[in-house]
Amino acid sequence: MSLLVVGSVAYDGIETPFGKTEKILGGSATYLSLAASYFAKNINLVGVVGRDFADEDIDVLKSRAIDLEGLQVDNSGDTFFWSGKYHYDLNNRDTLDTQLNVFERFDPVIPEKYRDSRYVALGNIEPSLQEKVLEQVASPGLVVMDTMNFWIEGTPDALKQTLKRVDLLVINDSEARELAEEPNLIKAADKVRAMGPESLIIKKGEHGALLFTGDEIFSAPAYPVIDIFDPTGAGDTFMGGLLGWLAYTNDLTPNNMRKAVVFGSVMASFCVEEFGPGRLRSLNEKQIYDRYREFRRLSQIPEVD
Amino acid sequence: MSLLVVGSVAYDGIETPFGKTEKILGGSATYLSLAASYFAKNINLVGVVGRDFADEDIDVLKSRAIDLEGLQVDNSGDTFFWSGKYHYDLNNRDTLDTQLNVFERFDPVIPEKYRDSRYVALGNIEPSLQEKVLEQVASPGLVVMDTMNFWIEGTPDALKQTLKRVDLLVINDSEARELAEEPNLIKAADKVRAMGPESLIIKKGEHGALLFTGDEIFSAPAYPVIDIFDPTGAGDTFMGGLLGWLAYTNDLTPNNMRKAVVFGSVMASFCVEEFGPGRLRSLNEKQIYDRYREFRRLSQIPEVD
Repeated sequence: MSLLVVGSVAYDGIETPFGKTEKILGGSATYLSLAASYFAKNINLVGVVGRDFADEDIDVLKSRAIDLEGLQVDNSGDTFFWSGKYHYDLNNRDTLDTQLNVFERFDPVIPEKYRDSRYVALGNIEPSLQEKVLEQVASPGLVVMDTMNFWIEGTPDALKQTLKRVDLLVINDSEARELAEEPNLIKAADKVRAMGPESLIIKKGEHGALLFTGDEIFSAPAYPVIDIFDPTGAGDTFMGGLLGWLAYTNDLTPNNMRKAVVFGSVMASFCVEEFGPGRLRSLNEKQIYDRYREFRRLSQIPEVD
Repeated sequence: MSLLVVGSVAYDGIETPFGKTEKILGGSATYLSLAASYFAKNINLVGVVGRDFADEDIDVLKSRAIDLEGLQVDNSGDTFFWSGKYHYDLNNRDTLDTQLNVFERFDPVIPEKYRDSRYVALGNIEPSLQEKVLEQVASPGLVVMDTMNFWIEGTPDALKQTLKRVDLLVINDSEARELAEEPNLIKAADKVRAMGPESLIIKKGEHGALLFTGDEIFSAPAYPVIDIFDPTGAGDTFMGGLLGWLAYTNDLTPNNMRKAVVFGSVMASFCVEEFGPGRLRSLNEKQIYDRYREFRRLSQIPEVD
C-alpha cells in the first residue's frame, strides 16, 4: 500500500561523545521514509529543502526508491538546519542552533498522485500543518502522527483539533504524561486515546515501547545496543519501520501491530549505530529479520504449568 | 531448598499521594521473606528488632511459615525506623527520618540449623556484614545480594570484596551505572560481572528488569499497574519472588532464571497495590500464576516468517 510521509527534510550538525559532523542529512521525513523503504514500496515524500540541498542527498532518497515529486525546492533560502550536542549518557542533548530557513514557510501541498495514499505519516511539524495535510488526502486507511512538547505547550488547541483525525499517535513517555497531565503511563494512555487516536504507542527510549490498541497492551523491549553512536532520528526511524511494515502488510490486527512495533524498534536499533541516517542506507532483509528474531529471544517468557 | 534471608526488619512511616501510615511493618528481610514464602518452603530469617516490635508483626511472618529463630530481639532500644514521602509521580521519594536504633548494632549471627542453607539472600545492609554472613554459611548453592548507592559511594572496598563471593547481584539501573562508572547499561553489566557475580539483574522500576546470565540477556517488562498505591518494598519483593522461585525449583538454567525474574516482577506488581507489605499477606497461587501469564501475553512478540 502507498505511504505518504510529511515532515522535515533537514541538515543536522551533531556532536556525540564519539564524534562530530558539520552538516549531515536529517529531518523527520528523511528518517521516516528511509526506514519505511525497507518494507513499503510506494513511499511518497512531502517536504521542503533550500538552495543548499545537495544532489547527493537527493540521491540517498532516490536510491531507496522514495518518490520525491512532493519535495519542494525553495531557492529563496537554505534548508532547515539543526545542531545539537549529546551528553555523556546520550539520553540528553542540548540544542546548539536551530535555523528554520525555508521550513518556516513550509506549505505542505500534496501532489495529485499522492492524494489516495492509504497510509499517512505525519512527522513532528506544526499541528495546523498536519491538519492541512489531512484535508488534502482522500480517505486514508490509517493516519499516524508524531508530536512534541513544543506543540503540546505552544499550540494545545490546534493539536487537540488534529488529534481527533488521527488513528495512531506515536509519542514518547514525557510527552504522553504532559499531554494527559497524568504521571501514570497507563492512565495517561487512556486519557490520550479519549482525545481521538484509537491506538497509541508510547516510546520509552532505551526502555522500549508500549502499544495500546483495542483493549490490549503490548510491551516491547529495547534492543541492548552496546555501541550507540548517535541517537539522532531514532524516534522517526521507529515510526518509519512501524509504518513501513503496516503499509506493506496492510493488516491492522493487534497481532500485526505488535510486529510493526518490533520492526520499528529493529530499525531504530540500527539507526543509532552510525552517524545520522548512515546505517539506513545499507541494510538488507536478512539483517532486519535476524534482529527481529533477536528481539523475540530477548523478551521470551517461558511458559509455566 | 532452604533459603536464608538476612536484612533489615523495620517499621516504616510512609506518605504517598494516596494516604499515610504512621508505623507499618517493613524492612528488606520482611519483604524478601514474605514474597519468597509463596514459593520456597524453608525460609530462615536473620535480623534484629527492638523492644517495640509488636507480637502481631511477629505473627505476620509466622503466618507465612517463616522460621524466626534467627530474628534477634534487642531490648536495649527500638526497631529500625524509616519514614519517607513519595512525590506525585511515585518515582521519587524524600527520606524524612531514619532512626537506626538497634539495627546500628546488628551482628548477623546465623543459627546452627541455618548454616547449610542452599540459597542465601543478602538484603541491602553494610557490605562487611554481608560478608560476615557468608563466613558462617557452609557451602551455599547460590548467593544473591542487593546493595545501594550509599555503600557504592561509602564503602567501595568492602563492597568489592563482598562482590567476589556473590553469584547473582540484584541492583537498580542507577546503581549499576554508578558501580561500573559507565552510562551504557550493557557495558556496565559486563564491568559489574567482572567484579565477581556470574549473573546480574538490573531493575528498572516501571520499565521492568534485565537479566544477564551466561551469554544471555533477558528483558522482562514491568506490569502496567494502574493503581500504584505505595512503591515501598517493591525491589525487595522482586528479589524475594525471584529467590523463592529459584529455591523452590532448585534450577539455575537461563530458562528458569527467566521465570524467576518474571515471578519476582509478579510479586512486586502485587506489592505496590497496597500500603507496606499488606498485599503480600493474602495472595494465592492462582492469582500469582494468572499474573505470570498476563506478563507473558503482555510481551509476546509474534513470529515472522
